[in-house]
Amino acid sequence: MFSTDTHPALSRRIAGLRASPIRQILSVIDQPGMISFAGGLPATETFPQLDLHKLPPHLLQYGPTEGEPALRKQLAQDLAAIGLDCKPEQVLILSGSQQGIDLVAKLFVDPGTTVALESPSYLAALEVLRFFGARFQLFDPSEPAAGWRHGAAPALLYAIPTFQNPTGRCYSSDERAALAGACDAYGVTLFEDDPYRDLAYETVDRVPVCARLRRASWIYQGSFSKSFAPGLRLGYLVASPDLLPHLVNLKLGADLHSNRLSQWLILEMLRDPQRAERLESLVATYRHKRDGFAALLRQRLGARAQWELPPGGLFFWLRLASGMDTRALLPEAIARGVAFMPGENFYPDAPVTGTLRLNFSHADAQQCERGVAILAELLG
Amino acid sequence: MFSTDTHPALSRRIAGLRASPIRQILSVIDQPGMISFAGGLPATETFPQLDLHKLPPHLLQYGPTEGEPALRKQLAQDLAAIGLDCKPEQVLILSGSQQGIDLVAKLFVDPGTTVALESPSYLAALEVLRFFGARFQLFDPSEPAAGWRHGAAPALLYAIPTFQNPTGRCYSSDERAALAGACDAYGVTLFEDDPYRDLAYETVDRVPVCARLRRASWIYQGSFSKSFAPGLRLGYLVASPDLLPHLVNLKLGADLHSNRLSQWLILEMLRDPQRAERLESLVATYRHKRDGFAALLRQRLGARAQWELPPGGLFFWLRLASGMDTRALLPEAIARGVAFMPGENFYPDAPVTGTLRLNFSHADAQQCERGVAILAELLG
Repeated sequence: MFSTDTHPALSRRIAGLRASPIRQILSVIDQPGMISFAGGLPATETFPQLDLHKLPPHLLQYGPTEGEPALRKQLAQDLAAIGLDCKPEQVLILSGSQQGIDLVAKLFVDPGTTVALESPSYLAALEVLRFFGARFQLFDPSEPAAGWRHGAAPALLYAIPTFQNPTGRCYSSDERAALAGACDAYGVTLFEDDPYRDLAYETVDRVPVCARLRRASWIYQGSFSKSFAPGLRLGYLVASPDLLPHLVNLKLGADLHSNRLSQWLILEMLRDPQRAERLESLVATYRHKRDGFAALLRQRLGARAQWELPPGGLFFWLRLASGMDTRALLPEAIARGVAFMPGENFYPDAPVTGTLRLNFSHADAQQCERGVAILAELLG
Repeated sequence: MFSTDTHPALSRRIAGLRASPIRQILSVIDQPGMISFAGGLPATETFPQLDLHKLPPHLLQYGPTEGEPALRKQLAQDLAAIGLDCKPEQVLILSGSQQGIDLVAKLFVDPGTTVALESPSYLAALEVLRFFGARFQLFDPSEPAAGWRHGAAPALLYAIPTFQNPTGRCYSSDERAALAGACDAYGVTLFEDDPYRDLAYETVDRVPVCARLRRASWIYQGSFSKSFAPGLRLGYLVASPDLLPHLVNLKLGADLHSNRLSQWLILEMLRDPQRAERLESLVATYRHKRDGFAALLRQRLGARAQWELPPGGLFFWLRLASGMDTRALLPEAIARGVAFMPGENFYPDAPVTGTLRLNFSHADAQQCERGVAILAELLG
């Protein structure tokens, strides 16, 4: 009666839409016994206790599209404390920071619009930007404006300067200054995605690049998925005043407003006097996991792959000496109970083979040991 | 430093995007003392008590894009019970049913794509479809296919057959059969939006039109905002198997997956042995409110407006004898503490003036009395 791919009336942009590798990952993580190095999954044991018994009943009603005023105010204060001056009116609460990518793509991207990004970069951002018709232009954070003279500047630049996904890399202070300067000089809107900033295992410059802009328009976004809990689906963006009203209008069309339970729960956690201690303990837990994972990698894969110790975030980025396409390896790995993310998926254009991204935050020590051993066997 | 509307790099589709009247409404409802007849706001006193102490901790983790398997299964059972046969695999959980409109628009609408709908129709559906470039074709539910011969059939038909928004009208059994027959005959995909079906104050045919289709593709969507609580931002869609995989891919790009707390809370409520009694009591409450509101309207506005008693849903739809543009009336009404929705906003093309939509579910009896009196004064 029905067959896929033959419906005559679908939009043109659907033609390029494929099942995302992320969906495959999200669908296997609940399988009993699966060791997941694949998604950016926090450790379940770090999640907070939730209690709704003080929830004001009016929060079950419809709410403002921009988000709860008290949460917007808290976030503006928190952002000022890390160097990004903004007013509560510039904050828009999101149903997870993935939503910010959808809204910003709607705001900027027509078929053929040039968007600059790093290669590799965050898979689901590539997918959404591509879906709206973006043409990708690659940039190098050490020299972002190379090639922007003569009218070749992009409409938008997407970057994850702090603990980049998938590489784990953190832009240096010089690179941050260069990127801000380039965006200002060429009038390029900066879209800074910053979901990992709380998870810093070394002392590095994490001041948002948006805080250094003087003229260019900007969107900065953050997430509560990594430092609180992803199941709450809550994130936020802050934008320059020329962009924010459009983003609020787009948010209304997307889902009216974000979940008010999650907004209330997150605000309670942000106001918790134990907040700083809780974050320190979380970071200590993840630093310990990272170091244990690094030791396993050295022991099992030292001869077959290269990587750098990530200064923050949730991932190791491996380059295999063999250069094999790791997409071909994934089904076998899943069959043996280990999921990972093939690095090839993160390239906006021709993928560099022999790359893979391993998450170290979710699996426990025993699972990490067994999982890395299985990967080592599969890599032969 | 910044000015709105002058950013040079925005997408073409942004040009037509205006601040929605819905946003204005969502922003005034929390103002102390405001009597809101504007939004489709349920009565806050009907909201359930929420308790998270039995929440399984793994639900704070990332989850499947399609939604929780147990919730999808429950919904497939519930839909079968109202005549719409479907498998759990056809169900996609949404962050409120507004999200379904965004996803379906992405799936079907290119600039210039023809979408059929009633005039008037749901404002935020008009806005989203227009945003993606839809060209509107109006249809009459008593003769839906008039004019579809000679290749003029639309790509998609959007309808709210049960307690239509804004008119409150319910399609007859004949109209339901005619609409299904027309979609089948012309291969038109039916998008049936059904957020009000639980709120039936009279005995009417509420079997989904999608249940009568034999060939055409379809999307049916429902909401938990009206019968449980809007602040949970949860809805769902069910689609024919040719469309569902695309919608899941689009959902992933939009927000990865829906809030898992809300999914768990709603499933608990759907499984509650008291569910049927709870709904009966809710319907009785709203029927009583509707009848009280009807009496007030007769008393205060009987000479100045016409309306029909809505057999379900949350709204009275008024046509003023004066024909005045009610958009001009709204600021004064809000200044006097009463919000309503100008009917002009609901027209896809040239608005019929002298129309307004009044919600009767949110304000209490005293507020209704005062609010209708103020409206009567304003209407002179």
